[in-house]
Amino acid sequence: MATESKHILAGKKGIIFGVINETSLAWAVAKQCVNEGATIVLTNTKAAVKLGTTQQLASSINMPFIPCDATKIDDLEHLLTQSQELLGGKIDFVLHAVAQSMNLRRRKPYEDICYPYFQKTLDISAVSFHKLLQTAHKLDALQNGASVLTLTYIASERSMYGYNDMSDAKALLESIVRNFGRFLGEQKHIRVNAISQSPVPTKAGSHWDNESYFLDYTNQLAPLGNATADDLADLCVMMFSDYTRRVTMQTIYNDGGFSKTILTPSLIDSFKNITPKENCN
Amino acid sequence: MATESKHILAGKKGIIFGVINETSLAWAVAKQCVNEGATIVLTNTKAAVKLGTTQQLASSINMPFIPCDATKIDDLEHLLTQSQELLGGKIDFVLHAVAQSMNLRRRKPYEDICYPYFQKTLDISAVSFHKLLQTAHKLDALQNGASVLTLTYIASERSMYGYNDMSDAKALLESIVRNFGRFLGEQKHIRVNAISQSPVPTKAGSHWDNESYFLDYTNQLAPLGNATADDLADLCVMMFSDYTRRVTMQTIYNDGGFSKTILTPSLIDSFKNITPKENCN
Amino acid sequence: MATESKHILAGKKGIIFGVINETSLAWAVAKQCVNEGATIVLTNTKAAVKLGTTQQLASSINMPFIPCDATKIDDLEHLLTQSQELLGGKIDFVLHAVAQSMNLRRRKPYEDICYPYFQKTLDISAVSFHKLLQTAHKLDALQNGASVLTLTYIASERSMYGYNDMSDAKALLESIVRNFGRFLGEQKHIRVNAISQSPVPTKAGSHWDNESYFLDYTNQLAPLGNATADDLADLCVMMFSDYTRRVTMQTIYNDGGFSKTILTPSLIDSFKNITPKENCN
Amino acid sequence: MATESKHILAGKKGIIFGVINETSLAWAVAKQCVNEGATIVLTNTKAAVKLGTTQQLASSINMPFIPCDATKIDDLEHLLTQSQELLGGKIDFVLHAVAQSMNLRRRKPYEDICYPYFQKTLDISAVSFHKLLQTAHKLDALQNGASVLTLTYIASERSMYGYNDMSDAKALLESIVRNFGRFLGEQKHIRVNAISQSPVPTKAGSHWDNESYFLDYTNQLAPLGNATADDLADLCVMMFSDYTRRVTMQTIYNDGGFSKTILTPSLIDSFKNITPKENCN
Repeated sequence: MATESKHILAGKKGIIFGVINETSLAWAVAKQCVNEGATIVLTNTKAAVKLGTTQQLASSINMPFIPCDATKIDDLEHLLTQSQELLGGKIDFVLHAVAQSMNLRRRKPYEDICYPYFQKTLDISAVSFHKLLQTAHKLDALQNGASVLTLTYIASERSMYGYNDMSDAKALLESIVRNFGRFLGEQKHIRVNAISQSPVPTKAGSHWDNESYFLDYTNQLAPLGNATADDLADLCVMMFSDYTRRVTMQTIYNDGGFSKTILTPSLIDSFKNITPKENCN
Repeated sequence: MATESKHILAGKKGIIFGVINETSLAWAVAKQCVNEGATIVLTNTKAAVKLGTTQQLASSINMPFIPCDATKIDDLEHLLTQSQELLGGKIDFVLHAVAQSMNLRRRKPYEDICYPYFQKTLDISAVSFHKLLQTAHKLDALQNGASVLTLTYIASERSMYGYNDMSDAKALLESIVRNFGRFLGEQKHIRVNAISQSPVPTKAGSHWDNESYFLDYTNQLAPLGNATADDLADLCVMMFSDYTRRVTMQTIYNDGGFSKTILTPSLIDSFKNITPKENCN
Repeated sequence: MATESKHILAGKKGIIFGVINETSLAWAVAKQCVNEGATIVLTNTKAAVKLGTTQQLASSINMPFIPCDATKIDDLEHLLTQSQELLGGKIDFVLHAVAQSMNLRRRKPYEDICYPYFQKTLDISAVSFHKLLQTAHKLDALQNGASVLTLTYIASERSMYGYNDMSDAKALLESIVRNFGRFLGEQKHIRVNAISQSPVPTKAGSHWDNESYFLDYTNQLAPLGNATADDLADLCVMMFSDYTRRVTMQTIYNDGGFSKTILTPSLIDSFKNITPKENCN
Repeated sequence: MATESKHILAGKKGIIFGVINETSLAWAVAKQCVNEGATIVLTNTKAAVKLGTTQQLASSINMPFIPCDATKIDDLEHLLTQSQELLGGKIDFVLHAVAQSMNLRRRKPYEDICYPYFQKTLDISAVSFHKLLQTAHKLDALQNGASVLTLTYIASERSMYGYNDMSDAKALLESIVRNFGRFLGEQKHIRVNAISQSPVPTKAGSHWDNESYFLDYTNQLAPLGNATADDLADLCVMMFSDYTRRVTMQTIYNDGGFSKTILTPSLIDSFKNITPKENCN
């Protein structure tokens, strides 16, 4: 369960990408931002909106929805301009939760990927973040000291069978966090960070057959267990708030300690039931 | 300036190590924790108290002071037991800001350090954190879901001329964060993290002749500039709060982006005035 | 100067991408591989060959040249098939030294990049590595236990003003190293690594006005000074050899210690001449 | 099996710490160094020599043995002075393979360690490396451009249940590598690196009950499988050679890719047999 409101974001204006339905990570974040006093715009592509319930969810919290394909500059310009009008000023925070891989969806393995799909994976899941920030910079749409977040996963740093070209997109995304973070920090004291989140069972994850086994594995390796969508929501609130005003260009791990753990008692107990693979010298 | 209070720590009980005087990082944290609704105990060694104003500062915020040498188990037991009595329950958060190097003070260079001093540096600045956590575990003094922080510096990861054996102590300290964090996470959902803070001009820093040049350098490399004591105070509040309940075993950088930056326009401008050193092949 | 030959690569067959002229890093590597007993194929795009002296250099060491645009699957298939024919068997090692950014060349700053150029930067400098490995896998062109290297730069991890979208391409490239390294390791004990090389004054670097200042800066921060092309050549020989047969999925730093250094006496001396920038709180 | 000799270390003089018996990692390294043309001194404590066969092994390769407790400056001075006399000049390379934890041996869990033992763990396994380098520096015992290695393990970076206070010692050790590496690099172009080695079944490991399960687990996660003692020997030869003369202050992973892998097909297959632990929110 998310924390009780402290009105940490009172008066702040935000844009939340990536709400498709009530299981979306971005939806948990959106609700908690409003709960903490922010006014927000929800956005997603028209295609996503048709598949999901983004508009109904926006209505349910009395916040506007503006369609936007984050890979298109025109759409981003419209979103940023309209959002400032609707919210009454420059934007204080943004959540970029945008990712898609057709190679994953179509079950193309990493050693046999389709390159036009790969390019699309990179464009949607990483380059869109650059486009968002470059457009916001040109329009001067972000408030001095604004906070921008994107969501990543640790497969950007260590190879994970099954995560496919999304791993590469996340590595690219984290690099854009650092490089645009440096520029916007120098320019307007704007912070840009990525949150490396535990795997969470959502619709986005359901394209992979081994998901439930993998969730068990990471849950056993994380001393606090996998972080949930509500955990993420609370962390995003803090990262959007003024409490973290000198933290930038970082990847912050919301993963129950998974990233810093090799072995737990729970995992070793499990392993006692496993047949070893033969070592090859 | 620290943020306006949102009572984020209302009802929480904490212990703050390391307040010597009003320039101490720990003092900035202590004030802000109280401002955010916490009740706290201040602690430090008797020797530090004599040199500084710890007790007066505790009085000024109407919070108790308990003396404790964090390298001594007896002292830690007394502190933890007394704190629970005075605060009326188990401890929700702890700040460990304890560090000292006689090699630094006596200007022994890293290639000619005194080994008994080195052992003391490690004992005071790193092993004391293990002692604190082991003692707290044995006394069951920490609340379920408690949050423990220590302060570190990036010289733990990259060598910094002038920081001497304190670099090694910080590397050891961050390892203890991970290892005790794993255990306490599994046991009681307790979080243990380190904050890697920008250099700040305090009395602790004044043993090094090049400090002001170094502060300029890091300030030029950090896109947001060096983080201040007030920035640290707010970040600690966030890390002590329930908003970060699945973040553990991490080193969090409160450094304006320094850790993720090689070159800024500001630094390259400065470098145009510098005479190159000869390259040796 | 490169080391005297020990015939470490005797009998091995390799492909070297990226030789343009005698200042190319890849040329230093190619020469030293031959010196150590390997037979190799040089390759580059037809456009690069026209601008440089790739074919003459191949002739000067009596090794064949095969043109190949590494972004084109057909070209890669031709290269890999022909190389096996010319060299008489499967390939033991590959150096991928392929990188290009039109945003850098045309001096488009990072906050105003041209997106079709960005896509080309990623395709040439990173995705080409995936294409190479996927094609090699499909053709079964690599020897069991083969060693594949690519060149990267630390701006992939820390933001460097001036390196532009190439930073992002290198982050993507290192991710592909890990992900394809995992697959090929499991399949055929093939190793895939990146070498993160010191900046070296070559034609590729000359698009940036501040290059000489930057080289001085990194040289002052690197305790051994910047690594040269000959240093790289020797390291590549070792990474191609059987001496490193269990090292894979890594980024290896050939940088004189730059990556692990915050401050050296040399740099602090320089900094004493620098005017500080104002800190912003 | 180690590689055939290329006489890569012809003419070089080295010191190898840590040979106890024929299963020691250091013994594999010692043999291969001699095989590659080096002359060496073996050293270990008198206590270790009594338990093992160090002297017989030294005799078997016609190399001298000199006793030395690496925590004692007098012993180190004697070792370094004698070694130069016996080998006929300054030392070109050193392997420090020294580690011991009484907490591990006596099965004291990490949350109930004995602090005098912890201090000894740090002194033997990490501070001894500083003592070695400080003594060598004072005696000017190392050749210009010399290469020094120590052995570490990835538990220095990620917490591993069962590795106990040795994790902390390894983190401290890697920090000393960086800090003394910076100094010696600047002074005499000496390189200092750590090799992070796969777990290997030796006598040192046998104090832990779960060792065999753990070895299976890491072997399944490492795309190339766990690196063996012979793999390590070859990598050390490379690092001692002039082929790596600008690589310093690094931790090099000889682990078959384990450090960069979250999930392999082999591991996920195993996990299908595992009962999940309950997630705690």
